Parts: sequence; C-alpha cells; structure tokens
Amino acid sequence: MIRWLFCLYPRRNPPIAPSVTNSQPIGIFDSGIGGLTVFSAIKKRLPNETLVYLGDTARVPYGTKSAETVVRYARENAAFLEEKGVKAVVVACNTASAVALADLRKRCRVPVLGMVEPGVHAALAASQAKRIGVVGTRATIASDAYGALLRELHSNAQVVSVACPLFVPLVEEGWLSGEIVEEITKRYCAELEYAQVDTLILGCTHYPLLKDAITKVVGPDVALVDSGEAAAAALAHLIDNEGIAAPQTRSNDSLFVTDVPGQFEAVARRFLGGMMPEVQRVNLGS
Amino acid sequence: MIRWLFCLYPRRNPPIAPSVTNSQPIGIFDSGIGGLTVFSAIKKRLPNETLVYLGDTARVPYGTKSAETVVRYARENAAFLEEKGVKAVVVACNTASAVALADLRKRCRVPVLGMVEPGVHAALAASQAKRIGVVGTRATIASDAYGALLRELHSNAQVVSVACPLFVPLVEEGWLSGEIVEEITKRYCAELEYAQVDTLILGCTHYPLLKDAITKVVGPDVALVDSGEAAAAALAHLIDNEGIAAPQTRSNDSLFVTDVPGQFEAVARRFLGGMMPEVQRVNLGS
Repeated sequence: MIRWLFCLYPRRNPPIAPSVTNSQPIGIFDSGIGGLTVFSAIKKRLPNETLVYLGDTARVPYGTKSAETVVRYARENAAFLEEKGVKAVVVACNTASAVALADLRKRCRVPVLGMVEPGVHAALAASQAKRIGVVGTRATIASDAYGALLRELHSNAQVVSVACPLFVPLVEEGWLSGEIVEEITKRYCAELEYAQVDTLILGCTHYPLLKDAITKVVGPDVALVDSGEAAAAALAHLIDNEGIAAPQTRSNDSLFVTDVPGQFEAVARRFLGGMMPEVQRVNLGS
Repeated sequence: MIRWLFCLYPRRNPPIAPSVTNSQPIGIFDSGIGGLTVFSAIKKRLPNETLVYLGDTARVPYGTKSAETVVRYARENAAFLEEKGVKAVVVACNTASAVALADLRKRCRVPVLGMVEPGVHAALAASQAKRIGVVGTRATIASDAYGALLRELHSNAQVVSVACPLFVPLVEEGWLSGEIVEEITKRYCAELEYAQVDTLILGCTHYPLLKDAITKVVGPDVALVDSGEAAAAALAHLIDNEGIAAPQTRSNDSLFVTDVPGQFEAVARRFLGGMMPEVQRVNLGS
C-alpha cells in the first residue's frame, strides 16, 4: 500500500486507498454554472480523467448568502460526490472555497481542493510588487479568505479586495462587453487602479468570461489570475503526488444539477462547446 | 356563521372559519427581501392587521429558477405560514405568483392572493390604448402569466413583455439611479418604447425602487403599475368581503427568513424605516 502524503497544500483528510492508476472519477461542485470554467480547465489539463460535475442550480447563488448556509449546502454537495465514488473533490466555487473548505476537509474521506490556495500561489508567483487585487462575490470578499492567505504567505503583500455583485448576473445575462459592462467594471475597479495593483485574482468562476472587459479597464500590464486554471494545475499536482492518475481508458463524464436541466444545458453549451454530457437532475437537502 | 364567498377573484379554497373580526395575522411570503415593498403597502392600507412575513433568503432568487422548483419552494413557504395560523396568504413574489398560485390555492385552507391578478386589473383600469408593457424576472416573463390574463380579460390588449434579469441585482446593490442604471433601463425598455405602451406593469417587487429611473426612460406619460400596491388594495377588498378584518387591538408583526438574519436586517431597514420587528430564522425543506 502506497501512502503518499499530499504535501502541496496542507489538509486533514486521511490518505485515500491508493493505487498506481485509479479509474475513479474526480468530483467537482459549484453553486451553479460558473464552475464549468474549472471543469473545462481540468478537462484540458487532465484529459484522461473522468469528471462528475454537480451544479446546485436550485439554490444558486452562494455569493450573496451567509457562511453558515453555504457550509450546509457545500456539505450536501460533497457528500453527493463522495457517494458517486470520486477520488477527489474540487470545490469549483470561490464562495464555498472561501467559507467551507476547512469544514469539508474534516468531513470528506478524499482530498478536497478549493480555489483560494491555488489562486493565491499563482498570484504571488505572478506579482512583482506584491500589490495584489482580489475581485469576488460579496461572501468571498467578506470572508477575506484570499487576503488572509496572501498576507500569511507574504507578510508585506498589499491586498485590495473588491466585491463585484453585478458581475455574475452580467455574465449570466450574456453581456460580456460594451458600454454597460465597461462602466460597471470601471466603478468596481477604481480602487484597484488607485492602489496600482500589478496582479488581479479573478476570485469567482464566472469572472474569466469578463477578462477582456477587465483588461480594458485595468490595463494590459495587470496580470489576471484565473483561480480555476490555477486549481486545475494544483489538481494535476495532487493527482501526481497521490499516485492516483487515471488509466488511458476513461468513462463518460457526468453533469448533475439540482434544478431542472433546461436552462443549465443551454448555458453549459456556451461554456463547454459541442461535446457535452447529458445533464441529470438530483434532489439535495430540500 | 357567516360564509362569504370570496368573489373578487376565483379561487378553490373552502371558506375559512369566519367571524366579524378576526385577529389572526395575514401571512406574506417572498423569495427574499423584495416582498417588503408589499409588506409596507399592506401595512399602510390595513394598519390594524398583524403581519407575518417570510423571506426565503437561503434559496433566493426564484426568478432564475424553473417553475417546478419555485412551486416546491412556494408550497413550503405557504405551509409554514399556515402553521403560524394566518387567515390569508399573500404571495408577495411575482415569480411565485406567476407559476405557483393555482397550486397553492388547491392546497391552502385560507385565501391565497398573488400579484398577477391585482396588477392586471390595475393596468387595464389605467390604460387608455390597451397597449400594456410588463417587466419582470426571466421566470415571470417566461410563464406569460401577466400576458395571458391581460389578453383573457381584454381580447384586444397588446402586450409587450420584457425580462430584466439585472434589475434585481441592481436594487440589491443599492444602485437606483445614475448612468449605469439608465443605460441598462434603456436597453431593457427599448422594445416597450417602440411599441408605444401607455401603461407598464412593474412585475417584480424589487422594481418599484427603480420607478424614477424607469420613468426617466419611458417618459412621464406611461403609467407605472406597482403590482404590490394593487395587491394591497385587493387584499383590503378580500378582508372586507370575507368579514375577517382585525379588531382595533393588534399584535406585533413578525419577520422570518431562511438564511441568517444579518444582511436581511440591514436591507430591510432601508425598506421599512425605523420601526422594524425582530427577524427570526427558520429552516424550510433543506
């Protein structure tokens, strides 16, 4: 029995039953559709892995809700994925990562990976001046999860965090460019420009779709960190460290949602393109 | 025993146990905070009545979710209010009114009043040309509940319905005026202007807070119908018809929410002003 320590990021999970290859799927959950940007990044990075995605569309969004409620929802989501026999859980939702990760790591039998730690590591690597901005939902920013970890890992880091509650509805409305998007982005990013950040963490899985609009406002010299991409890289590291990479032959991916699939399917097609697995509905909690 | 028929709007509820006065409270529910505009309108119109308000803040919003899921949530909300001994239920949420009213009327033992019927009656009374606009959430507009009833009651009515998904987040962000609000309103209202509507139903309880911005765009000659105010008037009619008006002495109002009260309290103070009841948390379904 190989018992690799998962040493990339500290965690409290007991080591999982190991094997040189492991055909169990990787579980990913998000409050809704935004986590599909993480799903895509993982798919690209780890093409042999089978993925099981859960979008909690009946209770979306998490970013405007209390930490207590988000923790409750996150527990139910992770439990569902564990029942599906996943070998790791990726919390592809910054809000849930920010407020529920420690709790999930205590409860889950498999490694749990969030968005915050990979995003912070990527930002510290990208930043010269260590003046780093963070944009996210109200709940993510209120938790200060990004700010606290940035300062913990680099005591001189200057962090400016801004909640941008209109970004998610803008993306879901499909308004990704134009005057309205630009004006809203200017208003949210004024403080970041004033603080002259050289790196900006996109601390919400919807925000990568607004990359162009954000760059137009903050300028091309500010490095944008997509925490979903950073998480996919961290997951590849984890898979390697734990010795649980999938064999060459793989099963089909699965997509689950808690509301009826209709609208999710329509938007998911925009996120994932042509090859999209069937979307199934599941009831959680309520 | 007086057994008045509630003849203002058709319903299938059996008559409730009647009395000349009835000190039972009136129940009101909404997906979150927007229904407080209806709460205020009822408070103003029926100052002797005791009100019990439930905001389903742990699952807000409803306007982006499927009819099936909204019906499930609405059933749980109405059952909670009935357990509190209310003498009538007001569905202070246009989405739930649009998709769940018929179901609730079958299930509840007390009269159930929604937003759609009062809003439609008020709009038909206000409109000269019977060219009527409706703005609402994606779910309300997709249901065509307003359009169908307008055409049923006035076969020549021309109805233009527009979903405005960014209006709720704008109100919750507290952005009620200025360039951004104006540009978004212009974009949503272009079709209404083109159709030269003379009356516009604000088919979401958040929208009255954007009245000024909407008037600025559609012009002062377009009559804005606040379906919450119309519902308060219909409720007064119902109370009178059923002979269930409250006595002079009244109890304290109650506010319940399904997420932690903190953020709700802060925003509710903006809606209700100084005298605000204590907010209590309740678990529903999940």
